[in-house]
Amino acid sequence: MIPVDPQRFLEDLHHLRSFGASGVGRGVARPAYTDPDIAARDWLAGRMAEAGLEPVFDPAGSLFGLAEGPSLLLGSHSDSQPEGGWLDGALGVVAGLEIARAARAAGGPAVSCVSFQDEEGRFGVTTGSAIWGGNQTLEVADRLIDRDGVTFGDARARMGDRLGDWVDPARFTGFMEMHIEQGPTLDTSGEKIGVVEAIVGIRDMKITLTGQQNHAGTTPMALRRDAFQGLSAFSERINARFRNVVTPATVWTIGHVSLHPNASSIVPGRATFSMQWRDGDTDRLARMEEIIRDTAAEVAGEMGLALDFGPLLGLEPVQMDTELRAALGNAAEAEAPGASRVMPSGALHDATNVARLMPVAMLFVPSIGGVSHDFAEDTAEEDLVTGLRVLARAAGALAG
Amino acid sequence: MIPVDPQRFLEDLHHLRSFGASGVGRGVARPAYTDPDIAARDWLAGRMAEAGLEPVFDPAGSLFGLAEGPSLLLGSHSDSQPEGGWLDGALGVVAGLEIARAARAAGGPAVSCVSFQDEEGRFGVTTGSAIWGGNQTLEVADRLIDRDGVTFGDARARMGDRLGDWVDPARFTGFMEMHIEQGPTLDTSGEKIGVVEAIVGIRDMKITLTGQQNHAGTTPMALRRDAFQGLSAFSERINARFRNVVTPATVWTIGHVSLHPNASSIVPGRATFSMQWRDGDTDRLARMEEIIRDTAAEVAGEMGLALDFGPLLGLEPVQMDTELRAALGNAAEAEAPGASRVMPSGALHDATNVARLMPVAMLFVPSIGGVSHDFAEDTAEEDLVTGLRVLARAAGALAG
Repeated sequence: MIPVDPQRFLEDLHHLRSFGASGVGRGVARPAYTDPDIAARDWLAGRMAEAGLEPVFDPAGSLFGLAEGPSLLLGSHSDSQPEGGWLDGALGVVAGLEIARAARAAGGPAVSCVSFQDEEGRFGVTTGSAIWGGNQTLEVADRLIDRDGVTFGDARARMGDRLGDWVDPARFTGFMEMHIEQGPTLDTSGEKIGVVEAIVGIRDMKITLTGQQNHAGTTPMALRRDAFQGLSAFSERINARFRNVVTPATVWTIGHVSLHPNASSIVPGRATFSMQWRDGDTDRLARMEEIIRDTAAEVAGEMGLALDFGPLLGLEPVQMDTELRAALGNAAEAEAPGASRVMPSGALHDATNVARLMPVAMLFVPSIGGVSHDFAEDTAEEDLVTGLRVLARAAGALAG
Repeated sequence: MIPVDPQRFLEDLHHLRSFGASGVGRGVARPAYTDPDIAARDWLAGRMAEAGLEPVFDPAGSLFGLAEGPSLLLGSHSDSQPEGGWLDGALGVVAGLEIARAARAAGGPAVSCVSFQDEEGRFGVTTGSAIWGGNQTLEVADRLIDRDGVTFGDARARMGDRLGDWVDPARFTGFMEMHIEQGPTLDTSGEKIGVVEAIVGIRDMKITLTGQQNHAGTTPMALRRDAFQGLSAFSERINARFRNVVTPATVWTIGHVSLHPNASSIVPGRATFSMQWRDGDTDRLARMEEIIRDTAAEVAGEMGLALDFGPLLGLEPVQMDTELRAALGNAAEAEAPGASRVMPSGALHDATNVARLMPVAMLFVPSIGGVSHDFAEDTAEEDLVTGLRVLARAAGALAG
């Protein structure tokens, strides 16, 4: 096993938190390309160099710590949500650094590490790894804008002459990413490690129902074409129909609703809302889409509403590599006997994009209370160390 | 019968439209206390004076055209929605002017007319008549603010030294208001006159459901406390339960919805929405309130949501005066035999407030397509004249 130093790992993790430390508890505000993010990457690059790894920023600002020759790649992202916690992707980055450093000090195996840029989507979704993985071009990404109107091109230019060339993915034999679960499953069960079997696919679209805006006092119920009533009927019918189709891991959400004119004395003439669903199985995602489209059409027909579907955003489910996943499973059984589970990832991660380039796998550690993307995010330090040991053991087995 | 002049009535109605004429068709933009509204009232005051009536603006800016001695009062309001039609309240104002003018020219009976101010609720709801009728004090009204932050006190001050004293309601023997229906009932049936039996009561409140904001990918369905799901379940259950309670004239509306944080990838943590219901029967309004409160509590309990009810806005149903209503019914049968109906008013009108001071009654003329509060609002001119004749005949019978 690669001789990692849990104390050094925890110290680096706490030090990384000092860049953008914010809010209550162990909160962090370190969005991609902000001063704290760039400062954190400069510090990480320094730690990589101290460990004898070659620090390289690619054109998107993703930071690699390269070992010589073919190597296993470990890491995640060190940018955060505008109001985030100290772990999230930072955990996987510092774990990757520690294992690469310990491996190099021990004379092998060759392990590299990485912190991808803009995983949290200031501009897109997992932007840095999406460009490296070929899911997005740099030219198109440069035109993405954040909420304040800043372009991706201008934001990455803030990293100045740090930015170098693309790192050749062929030098890596595989990629493993440790991350906090961001959900309640491990915390609820008391288990210490989640071995990810797949990162779920996602579908997301806007649906608009258009009826007839009218006076809420003088328009009889039987003559109304109320767009909100269409929305609520759609939601209830979808819930009933999905029951025969989904698994306990499937999720669907109506998270955004906009009524027009949105006044208490006016029958709503238009309802625009988001419908998002996630599952690890492409066929099930398609079956759900069919039910959504049919149910919306049925409700619209019954209620005299016009129906418009916006473009469908889709990312396919990604299966974890069998060999890498087995190595993680064996390591989990060794480090936390009887306290791990195989589970899907409902959240997107950089591994989704890297899977286009090489075999990938992921492991989760518990999130206390299932909380993440919040200042209150936390994980017990012994669970962080267990995660580090599992990853180190798996890396050693694979690369050794 | 009071010898009204339909041509003069229509010409005045078209002239009134020139103040704030806007948009397509016969659209009008004449909100309370704007320049077009004040100019229209100045012109109406002049027409009243020409007819030998005494024009008096009360402190709220409502304009009376007073006959000498005890008189019947006829009228409505000449302010409009920000995007309104040419008829709405203006029809009742010009009809009142024409009948008062014709009655005076004929040597009697004594008829006065009125245009109340801010019926359309730039500041409140039927503000001018609410203050006169004692449903609202001028002191409290002066602190009301419109969407741009202007206070009612500052807005009425724009009418300057026009504003005089309150008009003593004891000088009037009763009040009759003609208005467009603002709904589809008469237009659909082909009838010419609606004799209002009651103005419905209204209840309106905000309801807030608070759950747990969470990640839409990592939060299993079974562990969610999704505020939007609470709202849609509430709406569907309410619809089912009201069926055993309501009449075909009862209406209820969820017109305003606000989700937090309102993002497609986040389980909504909070849903605030309006629930409004109207009916002519106080007991039924109370029974509906009970069902609303019970159903919201039931849904909140099942889904683990916190529940908060905002203050309840209530205006009681107002019965029309038997004698005045009979006079309108008889007049309708004489002027439009077999083409009138007794019906409720689902919309609020100034008559709701005036009913606290004297006997009131209302009549409706058809709205083409049921449209109102829209530039497209219109009524056939022959239907306008039929309304004028019915009102004049009833006024003559009552005051003669």
